[in-house]
Amino acid sequence: MKKKIITFGEIMLRLAPEGYHRFIQADSFGATYGGGEANVAVSLANYGFDARFVTKLPNHEIGQAAVNSLRKYGVDTTHIVRGGDRIGIYFLEKGASQRPSKVIYDRANSSISTATSSDFDWEEIFHDADWFHFTGITPALSDSAAATCLDACKAAKEAGVTISCDLNYRNKLWSKEKARQIMGELCQYVDVCIANEEDAADVFEIRAADTDVSKGAVSREGYKDVARQLMERFHFSRVAITLRESLSASDNNWSAMLYDAERFCFSKKYQMHIVDRVGGGDSFGAGLICALLNGCSSQEAVDFAAAASCLKHSIEGDFNLVSADEVQKLAGGDGSGRVQR
Amino acid sequence: MKKKIITFGEIMLRLAPEGYHRFIQADSFGATYGGGEANVAVSLANYGFDARFVTKLPNHEIGQAAVNSLRKYGVDTTHIVRGGDRIGIYFLEKGASQRPSKVIYDRANSSISTATSSDFDWEEIFHDADWFHFTGITPALSDSAAATCLDACKAAKEAGVTISCDLNYRNKLWSKEKARQIMGELCQYVDVCIANEEDAADVFEIRAADTDVSKGAVSREGYKDVARQLMERFHFSRVAITLRESLSASDNNWSAMLYDAERFCFSKKYQMHIVDRVGGGDSFGAGLICALLNGCSSQEAVDFAAAASCLKHSIEGDFNLVSADEVQKLAGGDGSGRVQR
Amino acid sequence: MKKKIITFGEIMLRLAPEGYHRFIQADSFGATYGGGEANVAVSLANYGFDARFVTKLPNHEIGQAAVNSLRKYGVDTTHIVRGGDRIGIYFLEKGASQRPSKVIYDRANSSISTATSSDFDWEEIFHDADWFHFTGITPALSDSAAATCLDACKAAKEAGVTISCDLNYRNKLWSKEKARQIMGELCQYVDVCIANEEDAADVFEIRAADTDVSKGAVSREGYKDVARQLMERFHFSRVAITLRESLSASDNNWSAMLYDAERFCFSKKYQMHIVDRVGGGDSFGAGLICALLNGCSSQEAVDFAAAASCLKHSIEGDFNLVSADEVQKLAGGDGSGRVQR
Amino acid sequence: MKKKIITFGEIMLRLAPEGYHRFIQADSFGATYGGGEANVAVSLANYGFDARFVTKLPNHEIGQAAVNSLRKYGVDTTHIVRGGDRIGIYFLEKGASQRPSKVIYDRANSSISTATSSDFDWEEIFHDADWFHFTGITPALSDSAAATCLDACKAAKEAGVTISCDLNYRNKLWSKEKARQIMGELCQYVDVCIANEEDAADVFEIRAADTDVSKGAVSREGYKDVARQLMERFHFSRVAITLRESLSASDNNWSAMLYDAERFCFSKKYQMHIVDRVGGGDSFGAGLICALLNGCSSQEAVDFAAAASCLKHSIEGDFNLVSADEVQKLAGGDGSGRVQR
Amino acid sequence: MKKKIITFGEIMLRLAPEGYHRFIQADSFGATYGGGEANVAVSLANYGFDARFVTKLPNHEIGQAAVNSLRKYGVDTTHIVRGGDRIGIYFLEKGASQRPSKVIYDRANSSISTATSSDFDWEEIFHDADWFHFTGITPALSDSAAATCLDACKAAKEAGVTISCDLNYRNKLWSKEKARQIMGELCQYVDVCIANEEDAADVFEIRAADTDVSKGAVSREGYKDVARQLMERFHFSRVAITLRESLSASDNNWSAMLYDAERFCFSKKYQMHIVDRVGGGDSFGAGLICALLNGCSSQEAVDFAAAASCLKHSIEGDFNLVSADEVQKLAGGDGSGRVQR
Amino acid sequence: MKKKIITFGEIMLRLAPEGYHRFIQADSFGATYGGGEANVAVSLANYGFDARFVTKLPNHEIGQAAVNSLRKYGVDTTHIVRGGDRIGIYFLEKGASQRPSKVIYDRANSSISTATSSDFDWEEIFHDADWFHFTGITPALSDSAAATCLDACKAAKEAGVTISCDLNYRNKLWSKEKARQIMGELCQYVDVCIANEEDAADVFEIRAADTDVSKGAVSREGYKDVARQLMERFHFSRVAITLRESLSASDNNWSAMLYDAERFCFSKKYQMHIVDRVGGGDSFGAGLICALLNGCSSQEAVDFAAAASCLKHSIEGDFNLVSADEVQKLAGGDGSGRVQR
Repeated sequence: MKKKIITFGEIMLRLAPEGYHRFIQADSFGATYGGGEANVAVSLANYGFDARFVTKLPNHEIGQAAVNSLRKYGVDTTHIVRGGDRIGIYFLEKGASQRPSKVIYDRANSSISTATSSDFDWEEIFHDADWFHFTGITPALSDSAAATCLDACKAAKEAGVTISCDLNYRNKLWSKEKARQIMGELCQYVDVCIANEEDAADVFEIRAADTDVSKGAVSREGYKDVARQLMERFHFSRVAITLRESLSASDNNWSAMLYDAERFCFSKKYQMHIVDRVGGGDSFGAGLICALLNGCSSQEAVDFAAAASCLKHSIEGDFNLVSADEVQKLAGGDGSGRVQR
Repeated sequence: MKKKIITFGEIMLRLAPEGYHRFIQADSFGATYGGGEANVAVSLANYGFDARFVTKLPNHEIGQAAVNSLRKYGVDTTHIVRGGDRIGIYFLEKGASQRPSKVIYDRANSSISTATSSDFDWEEIFHDADWFHFTGITPALSDSAAATCLDACKAAKEAGVTISCDLNYRNKLWSKEKARQIMGELCQYVDVCIANEEDAADVFEIRAADTDVSKGAVSREGYKDVARQLMERFHFSRVAITLRESLSASDNNWSAMLYDAERFCFSKKYQMHIVDRVGGGDSFGAGLICALLNGCSSQEAVDFAAAASCLKHSIEGDFNLVSADEVQKLAGGDGSGRVQR
Repeated sequence: MKKKIITFGEIMLRLAPEGYHRFIQADSFGATYGGGEANVAVSLANYGFDARFVTKLPNHEIGQAAVNSLRKYGVDTTHIVRGGDRIGIYFLEKGASQRPSKVIYDRANSSISTATSSDFDWEEIFHDADWFHFTGITPALSDSAAATCLDACKAAKEAGVTISCDLNYRNKLWSKEKARQIMGELCQYVDVCIANEEDAADVFEIRAADTDVSKGAVSREGYKDVARQLMERFHFSRVAITLRESLSASDNNWSAMLYDAERFCFSKKYQMHIVDRVGGGDSFGAGLICALLNGCSSQEAVDFAAAASCLKHSIEGDFNLVSADEVQKLAGGDGSGRVQR
Repeated sequence: MKKKIITFGEIMLRLAPEGYHRFIQADSFGATYGGGEANVAVSLANYGFDARFVTKLPNHEIGQAAVNSLRKYGVDTTHIVRGGDRIGIYFLEKGASQRPSKVIYDRANSSISTATSSDFDWEEIFHDADWFHFTGITPALSDSAAATCLDACKAAKEAGVTISCDLNYRNKLWSKEKARQIMGELCQYVDVCIANEEDAADVFEIRAADTDVSKGAVSREGYKDVARQLMERFHFSRVAITLRESLSASDNNWSAMLYDAERFCFSKKYQMHIVDRVGGGDSFGAGLICALLNGCSSQEAVDFAAAASCLKHSIEGDFNLVSADEVQKLAGGDGSGRVQR
Repeated sequence: MKKKIITFGEIMLRLAPEGYHRFIQADSFGATYGGGEANVAVSLANYGFDARFVTKLPNHEIGQAAVNSLRKYGVDTTHIVRGGDRIGIYFLEKGASQRPSKVIYDRANSSISTATSSDFDWEEIFHDADWFHFTGITPALSDSAAATCLDACKAAKEAGVTISCDLNYRNKLWSKEKARQIMGELCQYVDVCIANEEDAADVFEIRAADTDVSKGAVSREGYKDVARQLMERFHFSRVAITLRESLSASDNNWSAMLYDAERFCFSKKYQMHIVDRVGGGDSFGAGLICALLNGCSSQEAVDFAAAASCLKHSIEGDFNLVSADEVQKLAGGDGSGRVQR
Repeated sequence: MKKKIITFGEIMLRLAPEGYHRFIQADSFGATYGGGEANVAVSLANYGFDARFVTKLPNHEIGQAAVNSLRKYGVDTTHIVRGGDRIGIYFLEKGASQRPSKVIYDRANSSISTATSSDFDWEEIFHDADWFHFTGITPALSDSAAATCLDACKAAKEAGVTISCDLNYRNKLWSKEKARQIMGELCQYVDVCIANEEDAADVFEIRAADTDVSKGAVSREGYKDVARQLMERFHFSRVAITLRESLSASDNNWSAMLYDAERFCFSKKYQMHIVDRVGGGDSFGAGLICALLNGCSSQEAVDFAAAASCLKHSIEGDFNLVSADEVQKLAGGDGSGRVQR
């Protein structure tokens, strides 16, 4: 029997000009769908799990297309509620070289941001579930979304489900103060915490002394320190930190660390040419959940998650459309890119 | 010196699947911009007038792209105010044969719908202007939009500007009752009223006895009756009615009538294969304004406007990208479609 | 609880040049998936049924893409077996005006054509099922496919499942003699028989005296006669016949007849501009099954099925991506194609 | 041994916006190649003849691409001379319904228009040739092109080659007076003359009393009269006239007449939905040459040529990419457009 | 009041195969518009200036599309004269890795190359203007273009307008000898001179001893020497030199130097992945003009101009579609390419 | 008189998702044609030789399109036999960064794999020929293909034609044991042997001690050793070995060695950004044959071949669409990628 993972959040319509066109050059937009928790669900379905995504979507064809984009990749969508006014949209302009990628959000008043806890039967949703994952974006959508998220955490906890959270701070959605308060409360329920370079500082004012993110400088000791502080404050069982060095919009280095209270396990560092950077963090989270559900060691888990995430950067769209075998092959050391015939 | 026309309303991002794809088949959307009054402005700029479009658009690149789409065709955009949260969006699925076209609106909370009269300096805007045009969509956007529209009408009237209004009832935006009240007030200021088959009934409960729109049956006498009633109630100088017979999503018949209190002038009836039906009414309005500003007779005016509108149905996008010469040629009787070398 | 329908057959990769390009002009092929029984399953999933498609597909990414194309539209694919060497392919060149559409099949040795009955657990598949549908294409694929189809029919019968079959004769796949023998055997199990203009003659030498298909001449009496003969020979509970008048590759007339042993019910005749003609018959079959499962009268059923099929001709790809509401609206008489806002 | 046909003229780069986009909407142009005599050569290669196209093209990659476009379809390009400054270009905007297609020529100073007779070894070119074809466009390109064309006619005549000419008057290239003088001289060498509705009048002031081309009215007697006059003046062995009734840019009727001094043979009249109208006349010429070289009767020849041309209107690009079998099938009466599986 | 800049030259239709396709693989061309001085005008309009482009374009739709491409981005086109025969065209094949990009020009006899000074009212054009910019391409187009350019310089000087010139030598357009003579005369009027690595040598035989351009070796001292010589000969107030190291078609290093008679200011060197290399020099010129008009110091100016130009290499098309803020951000040191949300 | 080269093998339809899309994301496939020996023929035609490709292709339009793809680039296709059931297909997913490219073959039962020697008149084919080239893929297709290949070699030898073979081991097609036996026999006839890093080991168990291909480590001495062993065993006149270092799917280093029994000549090593990696080896073979036929020295030959192959990696599709001049320029040292105007 497949292990069952619940993820909860927003899935948006993503509109991106073709190739490297700027927004003002666009005569068409590639239309895909994505969002932190939906991306995680797709990855986990790809890895063979019973992944279920919970959200609310408007009852029209664009809402249906979002549902279909998940069904296509095997995500169970039976818990998606239909109603509300609109689907959130984000516009994505792909950067290159020294020109950064750019995101314009148009997500206010989306169906999920106006949903309330009464829209979801959490008890039924978490029945027989093994894992619950959400990100810091979901509670940031609205007060009702934050309340709903809290209800979900409580229900998951009650059902004995492991909970993971990717802090994922978005300053366009809420203030640091509000994030601190609400995430602080939610993190009481979280077992596995995932953060990128800036989240711990933005949300919890937890900083390592010698790191300047804007300069892309990464210190191993600094990150250990951040993980240790996070674990102390919230009693997580594990803290994962992703380490991105942004050389340019086209080239990034990528690695990660997993702290399990005993060891700090660092992954290999990948030097990546970037095809599509969005969803990089989500693919790490999904890789981590996959590895932990499969009983991997911490070192194996961070290796798998980092390799999964490295591959994501070579794939168009939010979703990390790779198999566990492909991830395993890269994690095992073959990054030569030789043609597979 | 070119004659100067002001139009005021909303311009939206239009997202349409390629060809005859349904929404749920779309992997990309053609991205153009359009909206009733913007469409009229583009037509008039094409005809050589100093056409100016007034609206409010968000201060980001998608808002800028909307501005650029107008500048490209020569519309003066210096009175467009920047600010607010979002640009309205509409999704358009092109129908074919027995399958109708479908529109999904996502326009709530657009910058123009949250704008107020203080955003616009109507006195300056109408300085030296010759004509003001709006449609029934603008006051339907919100209460503040209705109030702003009323202020615009008053300012235009004060500046001695001719005012035209296309009733354009949209039942997704407001109730018939509300439309009746507000449009009734606005119509006090209007000189030239344009209506399609259903507007007069929906907005003002003015009906011709023997016409069933859903069956596409059109009676000349019925339409004369409607025009006469409209003119009596609001003392318009002219009433134009467009007559669409929808044989299928691919084939329509199209004609129009102009009543100038003296004569009922009917245009030729065009049998059209439809390339893009959206903006058909707007292109009629623009043709009518062009002809009237050029001093045409009522018969010439309705002929020009109907021919302009006929051509619009052969053009992709909201905008009617035809020249006055092209319209004149068709109005003059050459609809043979022979190659112009 | 949703009614459950099983369909069994081949799903192919469909490769079609863009627009009206000929094969030898193609620099790219639109890639979709389709096949008689898969098309029926998608329609029924769209109508809200628990539709399940059974086939065998190779264990590589193109095979997976075929699975995903079905999941996307809600078809249950859990009974699809993976293995074998290849997915069948068909190349489709869209005709226009006097130039006919052209199909090149490359389906030999596909996984499903080399599958055997041991690949499928028919007892489990038909558990709780309400309906089983197949077409004359499936047994034509190979001797083992014919044998498997027979096993499926027997198992379905045993499970008390209603069986429908679309005769669908393909002369590239087998001889008329072989078709006659095998289809004769299979039809012993069939409750509802669907045939187009030529099938009855090609497969069973059942002809109406006064009809010449290549001339597009259709006689109501002739079709009644064919249906009567089919029912007499195989004791079907219902016989449906679709009536296509091919005026050109761009314009067809379309209607259908359903004979329920008591009455001959004729649908309205639709005059269609064709967007995509492939899957027209399948969409009729799905419409018929939907209506019969919903308890419609014979007249209602043939009206619904003909309207469904009419709409299919306006939709790109094999799948008839319409809702029951849309079909109902057309069946109810509104074919005006007016924009739905 | 295949029969060998020489055609001589200009091949241009054709730049056409996608679909029904107007020039000012185009962000890309479909790039194909075509021109009267090149189009004829491609058709004849498709029909299995040894077709050779003679021209001059610049010695760069765009010139090479033009050569390749001919080689692709089996035209022998070994007599194409390389040099000169540029390839002629034409921009094509596809019309629809009442909006006509539009052509903008940018062909001045093309390599072929600046070529001289010394560029070509006509004796070698016509060695073993069976037929020579040119159109009235080639001598219109420039004085040197006219002189070269005359040299070619003389050499062809000397080599005992049958000569056909499509009058094809282009008023953008030369005056009627100049056309009359030069075409009058060239027609001394011509055996088979092809003209459309307007050419005979424009070039030779030969008119039928009761026809008004711009109104699309076609009189059988009138055309007979024109053919008779043409034959009398120039002693052609055959005169073919194509009869186009332009109902709209989307719908044309098409038929033709062939006069062989004994009989006036009229083809069937085809009602066509137009995919691409350019090259319609050229496809008629090629069909006629094919049929005459194959020894068809005059009735068979005009039937074949009209059917070939009818099919051309359903094919994108200048070239008529159909086989002799396909033409024969339509000429034989099957225009039902039923799918060929 | 916005500062007003006049640029004068040719705008061409640019036709480029998609992606990395070679010319002979192209089935379509992306169609944009560009040319040295037009590119500068678009940049300056983007930076918020009143930028006006002066040229002559044919009076057809392709000419209009060129006008529209400028209006779209806010360039004032009221001084563009319409007439003449054709728009210049250039074909662009994008290189990659060791394969260089390739340009085929088809610009002879363009409207601007056949224009004369009487086409332009220079006095009116330079009324209230602040800056005049042209490149060495404009006088190279034809003798009349050179004469017109000289008239423009004289009129600008008379009107007290600052003049900048980018030497931009094109050996396909004229000989070095002719360039030397004419540019020598024009440079008498120039205040700010811009040159790339080869221009000074090609046009004025001014060389630095130790630099071999084809090897991509760049010496700071050598460039200082060149700038000093240029300033001495023509009494420019400033000389800017752009320094490109071409590692491959995909990777270039880019920096620049500005000499103001007092100091030699060097910009940072950027390592660029190239999206589109065309217009790189023009974007530098526009950045420099922007910075100087805004009163920047020489170091600030060269930093801004180099950053602007670096960003251009990441943008498709000739135009540098970046804002002053974006340039400032990169000039300020943030080239990390991190996503802007 | 041009030198004449015969190549013999399979040409397949290549179906590739756009850009970096994965197979399961593809809604369309770019459709080109290619295969080892066809690729060599196209290169040689580009270099100006009389290149002829021999194969068998089905007698339908997709088969014809394959023929046309060769004719387009000047390959003589008169020896291509038509018949059999299908054209081989391969699906190609382009990798990026750490994600490898992926090929799915669907080539079983292709016309060429079921052809026999009686399909080809080898004596006529090799009449006047100078060179015969095949790869290890052709005999691997089927037993009859291996027998046909042997017959071709014998006939070529008899006609005094030089024979080259690229070992090209494909483990999906046959076992190492079978390859060893059959290639061992064929190599008796071969003059020039080409191998990549793994072929010698896979086919003939000839290994260099200190090289681990999967790690991309390349030792000059090791490759010399392999070449020496190959030459000793089969008495080749020359052995060429290509050396690929796969850093990632996006970046490869590429060089080659040619051993002529006297000297080991190494080419320059190229650092390549990869546009399309398929056909890299074939382009080397074609470059080598070109250089040797032109009488180059071994050093010149390996330099030309390596440069040709380097350029191939920058070109979309299987075919290496470069001219001899372009190759010569790179071989001569100019890899700066500067724009060619």
